[in-house]
Amino acid sequence: METEPRDDKERGRVVFGVAGVVLATSLLFMRASQPDLPSSTTPSLSPLPDYDPCCAYPCQNQGICFTLPANNYTCDCTGTEHYGRNCEIPTWSAWVKSSLKPDPEVIHNLITSHSWFWAIINRIPFIHKKLMTYVYLSRGNIVDSPPTYESDHTYITLNAYFNESYYGRALPAVPQHCPTPLGVAGNPDYPDVDELIKKVFLRREFLPEPHDTNVLFQYYAQHFTHQFFRTDYKKGPHITKGNGGVDVSNIYGLTEQDRQALRSNVDGKLKTQVINGEEFPPNLRDVSGISMDYPPSVPIPEEAKFALGHPFFALLPGLFAYSTIWVREHNRVCDELKRINPHWDDERLYQTSRLIITGQVIKITIEDYVQHLSQYKLRLTFEPHLTHGTSFQYHNRIHAEFNHLYHWHPLIPDGLEVNGTNYALMDMAFSVAPIFKHGLDNFIHTMVNSRAGALTTRNHAHVLYPVLKKVIENGRLLRFQGLNAYRRRFGMRPFTSFLDLTGDAELAADLEGFYGDIEAVEYYIGLVAERPGPSVTPLTMVNTGGPWSVKGLLANPICSPRYWKPSTFGGEEGFNIIKTASLEKLFCNNMKTGCKNIGFKVPEGTP
Amino acid sequence: METEPRDDKERGRVVFGVAGVVLATSLLFMRASQPDLPSSTTPSLSPLPDYDPCCAYPCQNQGICFTLPANNYTCDCTGTEHYGRNCEIPTWSAWVKSSLKPDPEVIHNLITSHSWFWAIINRIPFIHKKLMTYVYLSRGNIVDSPPTYESDHTYITLNAYFNESYYGRALPAVPQHCPTPLGVAGNPDYPDVDELIKKVFLRREFLPEPHDTNVLFQYYAQHFTHQFFRTDYKKGPHITKGNGGVDVSNIYGLTEQDRQALRSNVDGKLKTQVINGEEFPPNLRDVSGISMDYPPSVPIPEEAKFALGHPFFALLPGLFAYSTIWVREHNRVCDELKRINPHWDDERLYQTSRLIITGQVIKITIEDYVQHLSQYKLRLTFEPHLTHGTSFQYHNRIHAEFNHLYHWHPLIPDGLEVNGTNYALMDMAFSVAPIFKHGLDNFIHTMVNSRAGALTTRNHAHVLYPVLKKVIENGRLLRFQGLNAYRRRFGMRPFTSFLDLTGDAELAADLEGFYGDIEAVEYYIGLVAERPGPSVTPLTMVNTGGPWSVKGLLANPICSPRYWKPSTFGGEEGFNIIKTASLEKLFCNNMKTGCKNIGFKVPEGTP
Repeated sequence: METEPRDDKERGRVVFGVAGVVLATSLLFMRASQPDLPSSTTPSLSPLPDYDPCCAYPCQNQGICFTLPANNYTCDCTGTEHYGRNCEIPTWSAWVKSSLKPDPEVIHNLITSHSWFWAIINRIPFIHKKLMTYVYLSRGNIVDSPPTYESDHTYITLNAYFNESYYGRALPAVPQHCPTPLGVAGNPDYPDVDELIKKVFLRREFLPEPHDTNVLFQYYAQHFTHQFFRTDYKKGPHITKGNGGVDVSNIYGLTEQDRQALRSNVDGKLKTQVINGEEFPPNLRDVSGISMDYPPSVPIPEEAKFALGHPFFALLPGLFAYSTIWVREHNRVCDELKRINPHWDDERLYQTSRLIITGQVIKITIEDYVQHLSQYKLRLTFEPHLTHGTSFQYHNRIHAEFNHLYHWHPLIPDGLEVNGTNYALMDMAFSVAPIFKHGLDNFIHTMVNSRAGALTTRNHAHVLYPVLKKVIENGRLLRFQGLNAYRRRFGMRPFTSFLDLTGDAELAADLEGFYGDIEAVEYYIGLVAERPGPSVTPLTMVNTGGPWSVKGLLANPICSPRYWKPSTFGGEEGFNIIKTASLEKLFCNNMKTGCKNIGFKVPEGTP
Repeated sequence: METEPRDDKERGRVVFGVAGVVLATSLLFMRASQPDLPSSTTPSLSPLPDYDPCCAYPCQNQGICFTLPANNYTCDCTGTEHYGRNCEIPTWSAWVKSSLKPDPEVIHNLITSHSWFWAIINRIPFIHKKLMTYVYLSRGNIVDSPPTYESDHTYITLNAYFNESYYGRALPAVPQHCPTPLGVAGNPDYPDVDELIKKVFLRREFLPEPHDTNVLFQYYAQHFTHQFFRTDYKKGPHITKGNGGVDVSNIYGLTEQDRQALRSNVDGKLKTQVINGEEFPPNLRDVSGISMDYPPSVPIPEEAKFALGHPFFALLPGLFAYSTIWVREHNRVCDELKRINPHWDDERLYQTSRLIITGQVIKITIEDYVQHLSQYKLRLTFEPHLTHGTSFQYHNRIHAEFNHLYHWHPLIPDGLEVNGTNYALMDMAFSVAPIFKHGLDNFIHTMVNSRAGALTTRNHAHVLYPVLKKVIENGRLLRFQGLNAYRRRFGMRPFTSFLDLTGDAELAADLEGFYGDIEAVEYYIGLVAERPGPSVTPLTMVNTGGPWSVKGLLANPICSPRYWKPSTFGGEEGFNIIKTASLEKLFCNNMKTGCKNIGFKVPEGTP
């Protein structure tokens, strides 16, 4: 069983069940349970391989494999709470802790069911706070911070920390010159990507998301994550132009030049224009210094081009809708701040409003978005003070595997029906016309009322074939380790068979044909192929994406002790804007004709 | 009395004396001690000022002053463990802690004297480790991390964190439009800078440093700190080109382009050349892509120009000597690593050697440099694992005040005598000729045997007048708060009079003439004018520079739990190179003709 040594301390505080009895029993039987393990001094008797022995990933429990001369190796078990040639023998305290720790899948099932139980827990502040602290720390601390790896080296370098244009890596790349693409397991070559897509990914028929997830959720995911997933494709999939997390650059722009260009320089507000009596982002021609991703091959009239914080966000109406709402919200917050602090200048109104918007983004992401995504019955709350005084690190690096994992295109339906007009996916690419034809509020209600697709196999829209193909190819270029390696890294038991992974005999047979060995299943393919669970994504995606997500949200500077106080946000009133933010308020405060059923589920009774 | 709330927890663990008795007595008398303080609900009865009331810094104990409409204010006391209109009333626990906490000056005097006592403590590992943990955490945690302020805003913004080209600020700038340059205290204008320099700074006669500090120390300070003090003067004194700390860019270069240019691409080594049978850095003409700071107005032959990791380091022979030694050391470590790991390629030898050099720099800086600088009798040790599992943040931002403080030009003597030849300061500017004329080893021994100047008033070399003038002007441009504000910020009692500051009646009278009010003494001027203490620098410089220094050294990624293990450094042998590093070894391993008396003091008996 795997452990994450760094968060065991925190986990230990929140143990479900009759810990004392289990502990006593465990200690009684401990000696008997370990006689078969090799001792740390037993030399390896197997013949030396003719390849780098670290290709076989012999070190367990996050020990570091270190290649020695003459195709030998050693495992550095420092900090793993294990010892032995392969870090396979737990220390007494690690053994006790891992014996007490329930399987993550058991916890996950518990936390996503028994609504009555959680309804009680959610109402007992003392216990609820303990649980939220546990969620923050157990998830946040499983992410290495400072980051250890990047994609250009399979070992630790100073660059992993000091060169911030790298995405971090939770696990280093598979070494070059291993017998197979994932080390030693499986077939000597990756499966053919086109075959893989056809058999495993392409949509047969639209599978709706079983938890009633709507398209408003799908676009939230895309709008939110693009502030930190900013791959610099000219340099490669391992390089980013972005900062380390929730910098609200998707609203305000990535560079100081962008940010200045988008400001009105009056009362802290962003530039807007009025179209059909409603406030919208300005036209691109009216904002010098901003560059947007309009493709030169597609003819778009100048009056239909907009200047936004993210160069991609004017290419899809759903993203444009979110952008518009956030621009309106920023300007609304500026009005509030000016009312409270009439002596403030434009600069302070702008800067403080940006801090409040950051807080709102984090609050809504945790309490509306992650709550729906996880389907936890535990009520998730944004309470950054719970991390204060702990070993939580208020610094974040976006990881290549997080970016890779977040390709959630199965959520995207084949089209949308707005006010009786059908739009296929490609009708909405490069054009925000539907928003102006039907009105922003109608488009928002369409997103609310339209079902997103299930995040599973055989549910990728056909027009997204090239996107998916690039994702898989990038995963190979980055030499990601396999799904089971990530399962181990994030404290889950590895899958033992293809059926164990998929829960579906036909899909299991297909994947076995492609890979030959469960240890050889590629990261992204395995994430999507996993059998559906109680959350919107399969379990491995929740339990690897979750830590990166929690870390990114809670490591934001505004969550740190010196920032998280009223004066940072313009006083108690400003602080309260964050503390009471919600998805519903965000939309309802900024829609002209009224709002209805705002949330991440289609309304009850939707077909 | 001031407190630093965030490190009180750690401080509490190491309380000298009979804490229990003091505690009981304190509690008995607590009620009686506070009757005069205003309660939090008492409205201010003083007439409203006609300026921003925050100019008067009414908030105590690090409360944040927040200007309200109509020239009113409020203090945000969050996290200060104090309450009341001006955060002046301690909570019970804060009051108890501050009552138990000895004055920093008392601690400082204790730790720099009683050699016999410390000789015992240093030999009891359990107690010594506790004390080192206390030093690390109490110093490190007093620095805000993540950083809160930069020099363009007097309030918290997202830029302070996300725009890493800013130097951080421990205290925000004095607001514009205050009655006096430092708020409300003192004269309406800064004193004339030339008058100030003439009366307070210029050397009358050379004052040798009273702790026998030598010129090797002076150049270590300059060589070491220039890796992170890299002001981008084109953009202003608040902007840096550097990274957040010990990135060894002074040895390897700041950008990837620089680093690649300086590599030999063989066995991980840096480019070198042989001159007079000794290894030296390469000539500039042989390294394309590197740019050095040679002034165009000074004629320097091409064969006397060198390519180094720092563009400034070929302009002074002392810096060139250190650069040469570190290049040799890097290549020596590469040889060691190759011996242990003959299968490693150039890239891995280079990267791992760079990690080892980083560790050596930190080890030598703490155990040789800071040990001498502080004159602590407590033996300082580099044991990063002591911070593991605590709330210590492994991320650092260089602060503008740290850069400003580190102008230690009084250390520089008016010249050096190398092998009987006298060199005035300007003879050694822009030229490393003395090194080749006398030999590197002779030059190093000259640095060892030459006394540095005392870091005090009236001891700045006359030729450095323009440098000093710029320092003072930059401090004004950056609107630094006064010396007493920094004393309060770092937990020291503010000075009550000019004599209290200087301990010298004549100097006190001069300064009183310049400033009028002790609260109006400028930061840098006050730091240098403070009466000499037991350390190489006066006490305020130790107690403000110390935290920034400890934070910068211990927050390095190599000190974090995931990095600090043998495999990161090429195995146990590589790890041991760090663990056994010393200034003496650094030089003795890399000098050709042998080494003698290597250390930061002139040998005993030196006149």
